[in-house]
Parts: sequence; C-alpha cells; structure tokens
Amino acid sequence: MSPLGARRRAFDDYLARALRARGPGRGKLASAMRYAALSPGKRLRPLLALAACEAVGGPWQRALPAAAAIECVHAFSLVHDDLPALDNDDFRRGRATTHRKFGEAIGLLAGDALLAFAFEELAQLSEVGVPAGHVVEAVQRLAWASGGVRLVGGQVMDLESEGRSVSRRTVATIHFHKTGGLMGAALALGAIAGGASSETTTQLEHAGSVLGLAFQVQDDLLNTGSSLRKLGKRAGTDRARRKATFPSVAGEAESRAAVPAFLARAREQIRENCRRPEALLAIVDAVAERTR
Amino acid sequence: MSPLGARRRAFDDYLARALRARGPGRGKLASAMRYAALSPGKRLRPLLALAACEAVGGPWQRALPAAAAIECVHAFSLVHDDLPALDNDDFRRGRATTHRKFGEAIGLLAGDALLAFAFEELAQLSEVGVPAGHVVEAVQRLAWASGGVRLVGGQVMDLESEGRSVSRRTVATIHFHKTGGLMGAALALGAIAGGASSETTTQLEHAGSVLGLAFQVQDDLLNTGSSLRKLGKRAGTDRARRKATFPSVAGEAESRAAVPAFLARAREQIRENCRRPEALLAIVDAVAERTR
Repeated sequence: MSPLGARRRAFDDYLARALRARGPGRGKLASAMRYAALSPGKRLRPLLALAACEAVGGPWQRALPAAAAIECVHAFSLVHDDLPALDNDDFRRGRATTHRKFGEAIGLLAGDALLAFAFEELAQLSEVGVPAGHVVEAVQRLAWASGGVRLVGGQVMDLESEGRSVSRRTVATIHFHKTGGLMGAALALGAIAGGASSETTTQLEHAGSVLGLAFQVQDDLLNTGSSLRKLGKRAGTDRARRKATFPSVAGEAESRAAVPAFLARAREQIRENCRRPEALLAIVDAVAERTR
Repeated sequence: MSPLGARRRAFDDYLARALRARGPGRGKLASAMRYAALSPGKRLRPLLALAACEAVGGPWQRALPAAAAIECVHAFSLVHDDLPALDNDDFRRGRATTHRKFGEAIGLLAGDALLAFAFEELAQLSEVGVPAGHVVEAVQRLAWASGGVRLVGGQVMDLESEGRSVSRRTVATIHFHKTGGLMGAALALGAIAGGASSETTTQLEHAGSVLGLAFQVQDDLLNTGSSLRKLGKRAGTDRARRKATFPSVAGEAESRAAVPAFLARAREQIRENCRRPEALLAIVDAVAERTR
C-alpha cells in the first residue's frame, strides 16, 4: 500500500468510529450520513489536512479530527448540491446520490446533520492535545470557509452565473471560493493541529485555495470530455446547464495551461511556509497527474 | 419598554451588526440570511441565553454571541423545515417563507450559511472574555444540539411518525429533541458565557429541554384551533399532514394539564442551579401565559 493509501485507511477508520461514537446511533438518518461521508472517494481534503499538520512539524495523527470535520463539510456540500433544488443529480462517484437513495427529506437533513457534526468533531482537537485557543481559531476558520462568504457563497455565485455571460475573473473567483474554500480550510486546520502560527496558517490556507482553483479547472476540463463511467457522474452536464466553466470562458488551451501555473503557485507557497513539505507536495503532484 | 423589550432590541442590533460584519456582504444570499434571521419574532431562545448568563452570575451582555448563534441555528431550522422537501410551507410568522421569497435554491443555501455562521458567531465568545476552553465546550454543545442526535434527529423522528400510530412517549421524545434541543442549548450556552461549571450547564440544558417540550405541546394545542392571522401560518396543518402531536395521542385535556407540569419541572431545576434566577423565571412565566 502507498503511504497515502495507509493514511486514507487510517482516516476512514477514524471517521467511521467518530460517526458511531458521536453521531445518531441508528436509523435512516445515521445510514444516510454514513452513506454520504464514507462513500468511495479520494479523500483529498482529509489527506491534505493530515499532510499540512506534518508539514508544519506535527504528527499527522493529531489532525484526524480536523480531517474528519473537513470531510463532513465536503460530504454535506455534495449532498445538498445534488438535491433537486440545485443540480438535481442522480449519480455521484458512480452510485445513487444520497437523496436518490434515501429520499429528498432525509437527503436534506443528512446534509444538515453532517455540517453540524463537523463542528462537534472539530472540537475533538481539544482531546488530542491542541490548545483550546487554537481549537477556537479552527472553528472560526472552518465556519468561515463553509459559509456564505466562501463555500456556500461560491455556490450562490455559481448559480447566479448560470446561463449568463461572465468573465474569466468571475469564474476564477467562483472556483477559488467554492472549491478553494474547503481545500484552503484543509491546509489551515491541519496547520493549526500541527501548532503553526496564525500567519503560517493563513499562508497555507491561501495555498490550499489556489490548489482548489487548479483542481476545479481540471474538473471543468474533465467534465467537457469524459463519460459517466469514468467520472462517476454524467459528463457534459456543465454545458447542458450552461454553467460558467473555465474552458467556456478562457478556451480549452488556455485552461490546460492555467492548471500547472496555479499548481506552481501553490507549491511555492507551501515550500516557503513548511519545514517538512514533502507529503503535502506529493499530494499536489497527485492532483497534477489526475485523470479523473 | 419592558426589560425583555430592551434586551430584545439590544439583541436584534447585535445580530444585525454581526451579519453585516462577518456574513456575506451583499447580494441575494446576504438578503435571504437577514430575512430569515432578523424576521419578526419573539426571540425566545436568545432571551433565554441572555437570562441564563445572568442567572449564573454573569453580565447578560456577555452572552450576546451565544444568543446570536442560537438564533441563527433556529432560523436555519425554520428555513429548511419550510422547504418543499419537508413541510412545504408558504407562510411563516405572517410573511412569505424564505424559499417562497428568494427561490428554493437560495432558501436551501441561506439555511446552510446560517448554520455555518452560527459557529463563527459562537467563536466570538472568545472576544468578550470567555476562556477558550469554555468556548470549545459551547461549540460542542451547540453542534450536538443542532445535529443528528437532537434538532435534526428530532425532525427525522417527526417525519417518520407522520401518518403512523405512535405513543405519547414517542411524541414527548420528538418534542424534547426537536424543540427542546435548541432551548436547552440556549440555557447551556448562556450559562457557559456566564462562567457556570459543566455540571450546572448540564442541569440548565435539561431545564431548557423540558421548557422546549412544554412550548411544543402548547404549539400543538394552538395549532389545533387558531387561524392563519393569529399564528402567522396556516392552522390545522398538523392534522392535515397527520403529524404526531401531543393532543392527538394524549387528548386535549391531558395535554393542557401537561404544560404546567413540565413548566414546574423546568422552574424547579432553574431555581436549584441559579443564584439570580429572576429574569430566567420571568421568561418561563411569559411562556406559560402565551396565547400564540
């Protein structure tokens, strides 16, 4: 197993245990939360949080509660994005979306419960030796990243740009907030768990946001071409919905060139702020090489 | 103006400023969040939080961030409950519901943003002198109260009981979690802001939950009879939806008798645990006397 594979497994075990220990015990809601949060996936954001903790000098295990919190916010956002009121998607990661499997009401409520659970889980950082003042900073940063300014705010900007002619700058802003918000929080919360200063944390948050921007431009490019089987959801749906994508405003060639430029900026900021950046840079490399 | 009226105004000013300072700056999302959170209302939960802070010996002003957090969670839960996937309500507090005014997508996302904002706001307790360790405890308690075990969990139990024959005990459990969860959190977070011990906080959380149970049985009784004008939403809707209500399982007479019994339990627990319980008991009295 690769080093990333071992951490992914440790993370999945941790999150499954956390949901059992502190989530609703049984019933439909508990099943829907597990279905959404423990679905097959790359676990990119949790792996970033663990690597960021290590990068600033902490043991990666200490960031597990932060990684779990980030993944729960990510799962919440996917479940709600898939609802009929938003993207109305039936498939995600090759399976039925949560509301298709459990019904729309449970989908909505499981998303809500996952968002609340993220903060309960984040507070567990106190139990693994992170000073309370730093835990409060982590709560502030995760709430900001998840809310109306970044993740949800980016989603609203995205909605409002559908079917309209927007600039390249606007699309970059949407991607920076909507996808970058949570990747930024992954690096920031990992850094906090590892004992980083507020300044370093802010720098790494920015690096994560730029990484998220690169990731989303890649997604736009993949969505243009790939099939349901490869992407796990219907391809070409962005165009059908007239979503604002980077290739649609900047062209495919320029979009392909933008990805390595964004990744280079993220790498530079990581190198400048970390004592042990290797694991974090390895994840950036994995993002650079991804084909789905 | 009554003492409660003055506090309610101070609270509304505080929440409006908090949303301006830390929420999304402008646009549809910001408007929808303000519409939901600052809508006309009794502000029962925030007033409970302020009074609980005072009851354990703190200045009530110190609980303002906690009160704002609670009210944002309350607003989130109303906005999501009103969505077509759940109650599909067009009116709330005599006005169009948030999704009827701003569209279903913005309704969903404004609810999400309010839930995230609650935790950002709660972290502000650090800025008014509450020790970081106590702020982390407040985060834990609010996340638990809002999530799949209590508020959202109670909502799921409520959904699953629709159209089914359930026991009096089940209805009491639903009310205790769904309405009591957040009223319990209001007392708990106020107590934390006022410097209470964990034991006192837990006792007051329970008192608030029982108060919430009483409040919800009253609501069930009011819903049986009142008109749209008085209640601000369509009356008799519980029966139309075949919701599990206290009067439908225990009868009207027994329900009317249960309310003062629950209130007496809440009062007793408040008196036993507070040095200055007067303001808190005055709110319990106001609940006892309410007719809408």
